[in-house]
Amino acid sequence: MCDDELMDIELLMIGNEILIGKTQDTNSNWMAKRITKFGHKIKRITTIGDEVDIISSTLQDILKRKPDIIITSGGIGPTFDDMTLTGIAKGLNRELELNQHAYKAIKKTYERAYEKGLLKLEGMTKEREKMAFLPQGSTPLPNTVGTAPGVKIIEGNTTIFILPGVPAEMKAIFRNVIIPILKQKKGKFIEKGFRFSGIGESHIAAYTSELEDKFPQLWIKTHPRIGLSVEVEVSITAFNIKNGEELVDKVLNEIREIVIKLKGKIKER
Amino acid sequence: MCDDELMDIELLMIGNEILIGKTQDTNSNWMAKRITKFGHKIKRITTIGDEVDIISSTLQDILKRKPDIIITSGGIGPTFDDMTLTGIAKGLNRELELNQHAYKAIKKTYERAYEKGLLKLEGMTKEREKMAFLPQGSTPLPNTVGTAPGVKIIEGNTTIFILPGVPAEMKAIFRNVIIPILKQKKGKFIEKGFRFSGIGESHIAAYTSELEDKFPQLWIKTHPRIGLSVEVEVSITAFNIKNGEELVDKVLNEIREIVIKLKGKIKER
Repeated sequence: MCDDELMDIELLMIGNEILIGKTQDTNSNWMAKRITKFGHKIKRITTIGDEVDIISSTLQDILKRKPDIIITSGGIGPTFDDMTLTGIAKGLNRELELNQHAYKAIKKTYERAYEKGLLKLEGMTKEREKMAFLPQGSTPLPNTVGTAPGVKIIEGNTTIFILPGVPAEMKAIFRNVIIPILKQKKGKFIEKGFRFSGIGESHIAAYTSELEDKFPQLWIKTHPRIGLSVEVEVSITAFNIKNGEELVDKVLNEIREIVIKLKGKIKER
Repeated sequence: MCDDELMDIELLMIGNEILIGKTQDTNSNWMAKRITKFGHKIKRITTIGDEVDIISSTLQDILKRKPDIIITSGGIGPTFDDMTLTGIAKGLNRELELNQHAYKAIKKTYERAYEKGLLKLEGMTKEREKMAFLPQGSTPLPNTVGTAPGVKIIEGNTTIFILPGVPAEMKAIFRNVIIPILKQKKGKFIEKGFRFSGIGESHIAAYTSELEDKFPQLWIKTHPRIGLSVEVEVSITAFNIKNGEELVDKVLNEIREIVIKLKGKIKER
């Protein structure tokens, strides 16, 4: 396998609240960690305000660099200052049109919220309808924790994912839709581990998170097991399998040494 | 006064560690808060990796948008992967040349660190010298808390500030060099306040920070004063003086109401 299978990804964060310093953008960091773990690469993160022309021209600039994936976050809610869908449609030279799937999903979400007493206003308003007007050729992506659906659009060789700015909603759609794609196009997934006893999971937590910081391409997981033992698993999505296995072995050895130093007992699995 | 006096500012954050999700960029948020407070506007934040060609072409793209100020952060340290100065020089079509002021400042910092026993290696190395090679026409900006000096470069009508990525170093240079410029070009500074007693500073802290979140263009400060009273000051840098005064008065009234609700006693100053 070679590096050609790595996907180049650009993030486009949209929101005046970030530019004025009111909101610390943590979404891009959350996405960056996962994109890196699955062996892909963020080439650029661009943060702009809620302005149609700026969103449109910035999207066109990003498309010129031909990334495999563009992920946007923010500006798809019901309020008047949410400009992302209009800006993206303009940038792609497509019309906004009422998407029936999105309309039904939004309607259902508001109906449920009303039935639960979470909303005073029943039914669809103009503001709520707005979220169902998507650029031509869009696929709506179910938002299981909010109302504004995400959107997927293919433009040339680039797939554009339009996600909400609310972290919980962004994360839900990212997990459901984008992680499977990151996995699918990834290199080989290598996972190895061992068990230990005598000390608990919490004793090595600080060490494993330090190792994760040092090797951001690795996942390090620990699970408590029956009989008071703890299982450690180190995994990587590697394009070069030999290098990937070597790194996993190296880090597993470091963890073994830590366990021994802390008077734990290694049990190979 | 009119909006023409507002400065347009773009931030360029440089560092692979941000793109792979290892580091959460908090520098741009810190700068954004202060730029907003002094009445100016961040138009865009771009985050890229430590690659000469990408730094160079991104700088050229930003210059085409003619911001008044560009602030970069990251990639000016002594290590081989610090590419910012080379990338900026290339983007401006200028040579890197040894800057004597920067050289002397860096040398002095390392001498002091060595004398204090903080360093094993005495004198200038190739890596340390590297930080003194600046694009032609640069003005070095003293780094009072680290070694790599900041850099100021004028290109056309744009002033470029090149700052370190280490937050403490970035903040020191920003405070010493950039805040005075933000102040100088700003609108009128309006400040009003009152005193209260009976309750402490901490009682209203949650409320004032909520108000600061709601109105990011305001500063709200509280100071304990002699005789157990507390002084509240609300200030703004306003381009429209009437609107600025109205907002300050409105927020001061809200704080007065909070103080009264919490059984404090208002003492006008």
